[in-house]
Amino acid sequence: MKNSIGIVGGGQLGRMMAFDAKKLGFTVNIIDPTPNSPAGQVSDHQIVAPYDDEKAIRELASISDFLTFEIELANAAILEELAQKGLEIHPSAKTLGIIKDKLGQKEFLREKGLPVADFQPVIPSEERVEESHTTELQDKHSGRRSFDGAKSSEWRAQDDTIKKELLQLAEKFGYPLLLKARFDAYDGRGNALINNESHIDEAINKLRGRKLYVEKFVSFSKELAVVIARSTKGEIKSYPVVETIHKNNICHLVMAPADETIQRKAETLAIQTMEQLQGAGVFAIEMFLNKDGNVIINEIAPRVHNSGHFTIEACVTSQFEQHIRAITGLPLGSTEMILPAAVMINILGERNANAEVTGLDKALQIPNVFVHIYGKMETNEERKMGHITVIGKTIEECLKKAQEARRVITI
Amino acid sequence: MKNSIGIVGGGQLGRMMAFDAKKLGFTVNIIDPTPNSPAGQVSDHQIVAPYDDEKAIRELASISDFLTFEIELANAAILEELAQKGLEIHPSAKTLGIIKDKLGQKEFLREKGLPVADFQPVIPSEERVEESHTTELQDKHSGRRSFDGAKSSEWRAQDDTIKKELLQLAEKFGYPLLLKARFDAYDGRGNALINNESHIDEAINKLRGRKLYVEKFVSFSKELAVVIARSTKGEIKSYPVVETIHKNNICHLVMAPADETIQRKAETLAIQTMEQLQGAGVFAIEMFLNKDGNVIINEIAPRVHNSGHFTIEACVTSQFEQHIRAITGLPLGSTEMILPAAVMINILGERNANAEVTGLDKALQIPNVFVHIYGKMETNEERKMGHITVIGKTIEECLKKAQEARRVITI
Repeated sequence: MKNSIGIVGGGQLGRMMAFDAKKLGFTVNIIDPTPNSPAGQVSDHQIVAPYDDEKAIRELASISDFLTFEIELANAAILEELAQKGLEIHPSAKTLGIIKDKLGQKEFLREKGLPVADFQPVIPSEERVEESHTTELQDKHSGRRSFDGAKSSEWRAQDDTIKKELLQLAEKFGYPLLLKARFDAYDGRGNALINNESHIDEAINKLRGRKLYVEKFVSFSKELAVVIARSTKGEIKSYPVVETIHKNNICHLVMAPADETIQRKAETLAIQTMEQLQGAGVFAIEMFLNKDGNVIINEIAPRVHNSGHFTIEACVTSQFEQHIRAITGLPLGSTEMILPAAVMINILGERNANAEVTGLDKALQIPNVFVHIYGKMETNEERKMGHITVIGKTIEECLKKAQEARRVITI
Repeated sequence: MKNSIGIVGGGQLGRMMAFDAKKLGFTVNIIDPTPNSPAGQVSDHQIVAPYDDEKAIRELASISDFLTFEIELANAAILEELAQKGLEIHPSAKTLGIIKDKLGQKEFLREKGLPVADFQPVIPSEERVEESHTTELQDKHSGRRSFDGAKSSEWRAQDDTIKKELLQLAEKFGYPLLLKARFDAYDGRGNALINNESHIDEAINKLRGRKLYVEKFVSFSKELAVVIARSTKGEIKSYPVVETIHKNNICHLVMAPADETIQRKAETLAIQTMEQLQGAGVFAIEMFLNKDGNVIINEIAPRVHNSGHFTIEACVTSQFEQHIRAITGLPLGSTEMILPAAVMINILGERNANAEVTGLDKALQIPNVFVHIYGKMETNEERKMGHITVIGKTIEECLKKAQEARRVITI
């Protein structure tokens, strides 16, 4: 019997995946560099190592029947080799490869005729000086950026080249522009908005050292997301389309379901996208609703997603159980909502210190409020520390309760 | 911040408690003699030791802000001492003491004017020869019973004394009688039905070596259960009354809610019982509905209970989250059902071997079916290996699906 799942990444996504995998009786093992990671705490075993550590991935593979990810970092060469040896890896290295390069992802979508904003790469990537993924990740939560002093003249020369290109692209697309990192750009940390020429230097400074592309800024009326799953048997099931609200580029609020008029358009686009994309598992497709009423794809995440956390309480099958079902070849579960409405609000860190939750008692006094705390040892400003879901009859009612519950919790 | 919970017992009840405690951000540590126990797999740390091991309980206490139980075994003296030192222990040693002696429990209930079946102790307990709890537990699942040969003449003399008493009690109460073990009588393993005089020897043989009492057999029309919680703040909340069906004295099926006519009577009795009983946490009150339409208490469990597993999917707050809220002083959650009906069916082991689940794919194909597998390494005949919950509009619809799902799973 195949019953062992390996997850690369031990954050909150891995943790919630582990809850549902364990519920179904699977063994769960994790790779994460932080000992006692959120997912490690609730899994059978954690290998403490960087996400792309070859030895660790081989060790995880040796004790897993199925391998999956909660982050888009992976060592593609090893994954290909392990897959050829018969290990079930979902999504596949190929699919991850397409998606993890945001420029490649956009090129893929445009090529398949799927609607995306105008975009263009900035200087051929071979010419760029790169930080390693590992360093970047280690610095991600602390906000620190460190550069080798010896490289500074090289950076300056590159900065000038990039600036020239951006000025040309501004003529082509018009302002505002978005300068975007191609890789590892979570939660807006890889985006810089250029409203006019005076913002260019700051944008270059923010993203220095990363592979970049430029995108025409979409003046959207709403942000939407569709969580959708495909199983290894080919079955596809979509969750209700939701409306999302971001603050500082970080998912802040999710309201489910989105207006009925948008539902069909967004779901159709999500299914068209999945038909083009290979691979099993849960995917999240973030979209913009344009001012003209059309939907275009903003970004695909090849994994369970913040915009699907509401499914834990609001839908028959949570996105996490759905992902486990999808990668292990089990039938997909119903994605129907149990009650008519749900709202999810993130609990982001408010200071840099040891995590300490207060106000849980006040939040839990509000009926139909569900609080999730991720068990991270340290809180940092804007770090995802937990979330709140409210289910009910109307979005207005849920929203009010969610905001009230969020207000009384500190972390 | 108090955020660490210690659980004595690492079976499925501890496991499901751990899921919800972790969801709320608590640290969870477990004592269980079996390494990698169902709860240990999903908790921060497991101390591998017998449930009543003094050193282990002191170690657990040293890393816990709150101590609780998934089994009614405890070392009362140590618990009292730890409680006096300021550790929060729920339910208290005193409450556990009243409940774990089934005879003492009945005496307590009768004294408080709560309805129970007629009963009487069999020979003063001081005169009895006892097995240790530990031996009994170790043998529980294997069905083996072992006795010291040197004791056999002592047993024979006791058997004769018990038989004489039983014959007298039969005259007083009439047949059928139930001979019952006072301690550690889970899942009917401590009960023997005596329909007439010819059954007496077999009953004595079955329960030899244990403290006993006799109860008049209640000819019930239905078995009911009420899961009810009291928090350390004194708040009390009851779940919908359910109808239970036992097979070989083991909970087989739970149907929620029970008929409306029974709801109020049973809930009132449950609340009256909680008002008499000290202690915080979730309690399960098993009842009989007599043929004359009255409810009487069969038994109280001072813990989350098999008859409350349906609450995970069917109610706003699961009994496991409710227990965590109750013992940590958080407000109790809503016990309302989300959909009108739910059915829970147990998955009992069918053979003695390494656990291996088949048919999960077929079961999960049925909509609104939730499967829980407890992660036990070995399956044994009648061992609780998992359960299935179905939620829906009517009990009939849920029951049909639950039975279909149970039929296709083997373990």
